[in-house]
Amino acid sequence: MAKQKPRTLSGFMELLPANQTQFERMAELLRKSYSLYGFTPLDTPIIEASEVLLAKAGGETEKQIYRFTKGDSDLSLRFDLTVPLAKYVALHYAELSFPFRRFQIGKVYRGERAQRGRFREFYQADIDVIGDGKLDIVNEAEIPAIIYQTFTTLGLKRFQIRVNNRKVLNGFYAMLGLTGKAGDVMRTVDKLPKIGEDKVREILMDEEIALTGEQADEILKFISITGSNNNVLHALEEYKGRHELFDQGLEELNTVVKYLGSFGVPEKNFAVDLTIARGLDYYTGTVYETFMTDHPEIGSICSGGRYDNLAEYYTDKQLPGVGISIGLTRLFYVLEEQGYLNDGLITAPADVLILPMTDDLSPAIAFATQLRAAGVRAQLYTEQKKFKQKMTYADRLGVPYAAFLGEDEIAQSKVSLKDMRSGEQSLLTIDEAVNAVLGTVKANGDAAPIQEPAGS
Amino acid sequence: MAKQKPRTLSGFMELLPANQTQFERMAELLRKSYSLYGFTPLDTPIIEASEVLLAKAGGETEKQIYRFTKGDSDLSLRFDLTVPLAKYVALHYAELSFPFRRFQIGKVYRGERAQRGRFREFYQADIDVIGDGKLDIVNEAEIPAIIYQTFTTLGLKRFQIRVNNRKVLNGFYAMLGLTGKAGDVMRTVDKLPKIGEDKVREILMDEEIALTGEQADEILKFISITGSNNNVLHALEEYKGRHELFDQGLEELNTVVKYLGSFGVPEKNFAVDLTIARGLDYYTGTVYETFMTDHPEIGSICSGGRYDNLAEYYTDKQLPGVGISIGLTRLFYVLEEQGYLNDGLITAPADVLILPMTDDLSPAIAFATQLRAAGVRAQLYTEQKKFKQKMTYADRLGVPYAAFLGEDEIAQSKVSLKDMRSGEQSLLTIDEAVNAVLGTVKANGDAAPIQEPAGS
Repeated sequence: MAKQKPRTLSGFMELLPANQTQFERMAELLRKSYSLYGFTPLDTPIIEASEVLLAKAGGETEKQIYRFTKGDSDLSLRFDLTVPLAKYVALHYAELSFPFRRFQIGKVYRGERAQRGRFREFYQADIDVIGDGKLDIVNEAEIPAIIYQTFTTLGLKRFQIRVNNRKVLNGFYAMLGLTGKAGDVMRTVDKLPKIGEDKVREILMDEEIALTGEQADEILKFISITGSNNNVLHALEEYKGRHELFDQGLEELNTVVKYLGSFGVPEKNFAVDLTIARGLDYYTGTVYETFMTDHPEIGSICSGGRYDNLAEYYTDKQLPGVGISIGLTRLFYVLEEQGYLNDGLITAPADVLILPMTDDLSPAIAFATQLRAAGVRAQLYTEQKKFKQKMTYADRLGVPYAAFLGEDEIAQSKVSLKDMRSGEQSLLTIDEAVNAVLGTVKANGDAAPIQEPAGS
Repeated sequence: MAKQKPRTLSGFMELLPANQTQFERMAELLRKSYSLYGFTPLDTPIIEASEVLLAKAGGETEKQIYRFTKGDSDLSLRFDLTVPLAKYVALHYAELSFPFRRFQIGKVYRGERAQRGRFREFYQADIDVIGDGKLDIVNEAEIPAIIYQTFTTLGLKRFQIRVNNRKVLNGFYAMLGLTGKAGDVMRTVDKLPKIGEDKVREILMDEEIALTGEQADEILKFISITGSNNNVLHALEEYKGRHELFDQGLEELNTVVKYLGSFGVPEKNFAVDLTIARGLDYYTGTVYETFMTDHPEIGSICSGGRYDNLAEYYTDKQLPGVGISIGLTRLFYVLEEQGYLNDGLITAPADVLILPMTDDLSPAIAFATQLRAAGVRAQLYTEQKKFKQKMTYADRLGVPYAAFLGEDEIAQSKVSLKDMRSGEQSLLTIDEAVNAVLGTVKANGDAAPIQEPAGS
């Protein structure tokens, strides 16, 4: 028969079992971490009616959409989890309680140009809190705690959450009489880490944005306010009383910083950073970015902010919210590439590989059943192979234990348990064997999927 | 601004938070249950190249495919998890260890005619064991144990796993000289529960299949062999020695039944059923179906079997396997419809809703942080609302506990904890409150998502 060459589309991540197991552990910890903060899981369709999904979209995004017809229907694959959330909240408004807190971890699709580390199908892991009409500032203050908890749970230690407030920025630009130009200015200032201060000043003063030298200097002075959170907040006090929006933003920023300690976020993992603007005009209050201390070049690994109107394309209801998103597929790719995945994590499909040595398999099967009842992942290996091949299989899977049941063991109601890492083999009662393995299972269950490379 | 009416496509399940939480619990328990048997998680793309995905397909399936072009690429959405598995194993053959045991829980797409209880996007939850060249019969014997463990873990008690063997069937038809007609005959016999014995006999003897009355009677006699497993196996012994394939199948069936006890499967949840054939020609050994005792009309909720060649469209390698599949979306729909979902399960996004009664929120936030550190899901409610509205919110979410922190509580380093179900309120130390809630969290963690209706 003619064979079809098997292949996976480029831009689509398909992992081998060990990596997939690490990925699953990360997703599981995200679910757990988000749940601790009172977010409910949601799962919306991957396909939506195009006129619904693209009610707002345009420009770059629209070009990347996977859009097609099926029968009479014009359909599109979701390109993020925010638009489906807006649809969901507008559609089910009457059945939801507000503030509505949801997390969603799901695949989204963008037909980007294929290149290394860019994905066309990728997971996003989002949380959002949606208010009905109003939403208290404490929700914004809590976000750094969630980011901190999440990455700490994953095993990352050297990272920093950077926070700013769009009202502080917009208020500041209003003081300078630059409200109409604030968007352009912020997009330019956003490029500061990449292009440097001189180039930013130049763009700010070019034909298009056309600031005066004085205005450009004021802006550069403002965004050069750095140092400890107290220093930055103190420096911002100087601008107080000149514009209402600024004052409101500063109060919000003070509230966010004030509660950090109670939320359990260490100072070193958090910084007020006036250069953070988030390109989108969408955001209206606190904005967040998160950087790996040793790999700032990767960019923000968790971003988001406060917005005033989630679902204006679907409903007249005012639905303000705050949310963050982790690009999980890209993050996983980067972590693997940078050697941040914990090699000590057991990625084998089983904790014990059971190798029966007798024709009657009943004792081996009963042992497997006991292990499973105790919560141990057990695999029976009954293929007709030479002993050496069986051990090669155990090695390749990376199982922490192999168990042998021969005539002798069965006669004594015991099992020979081999610790595959130390090579040590012991003759144990069934209960002793179960307990020995359970210790390893427990330790592995507590192990984090990320381990920072030594010396970083 | 003109609004776009929000809607979700028909045939696409989109659950409200409480139901979604129940669904997630089911998916989580499936992952756990499959893992106990040594299956590794896999996640393949939802989109594949059409020529790869449709290498085999044809007829009904092909019509249902979501197929489209993007740029120069002819793409299709997967319609099951088996074809992507075949592709995966053929593609990554050199990097996998065999037997290769994987589970996958993922969405698949079929553009079926929309009707109640039919879904176009739905989850399948599959496990498969793939051998390289050969695969031991014990893998087939283990499948009923996995089905039993899985449904028992979900909370279902009244179900039966029915098993047959295609070699027994094919061997029997060979004895009657009906090998060429075995497919037609089995498809007809498959209809027995729906159309009855007389109608089956009629179809078997009509122009198309054209059996003699004697042959038809032999078949009806054969498939009417029922009773305890021992009775059925004993009756089958009568046919022994007449055809090699039959004898081999009977030996396999005996092996499957022999190990049931060691695998922990109770007799009452298992039956050898000679009418089970599974329509597909794909299966070659043991075949499985699973029925809810009180709702046989729903059909099999978990089916599968042994096959000889997983990936013949992609590779010359002989890759025999055995697998089962649960249609999770449909199962969930049915369970909800039949009142099988456990209403006692906590479906609120949080275990404790914290209601601060002071301006300074630090103590309330610190309490939330302590709860979360202990593994309790805690939500702060800080919106400016009347007390009654706050309690309505707590009620609607269904949180088991509300916690109040006023001046008095804070002065004593205590918290007022209200059990929302009993209505009881107690003034407790922080540790006491954490422990009280942890008890509920633990009990809920052990609760099953399915609860059979009383009297069934």
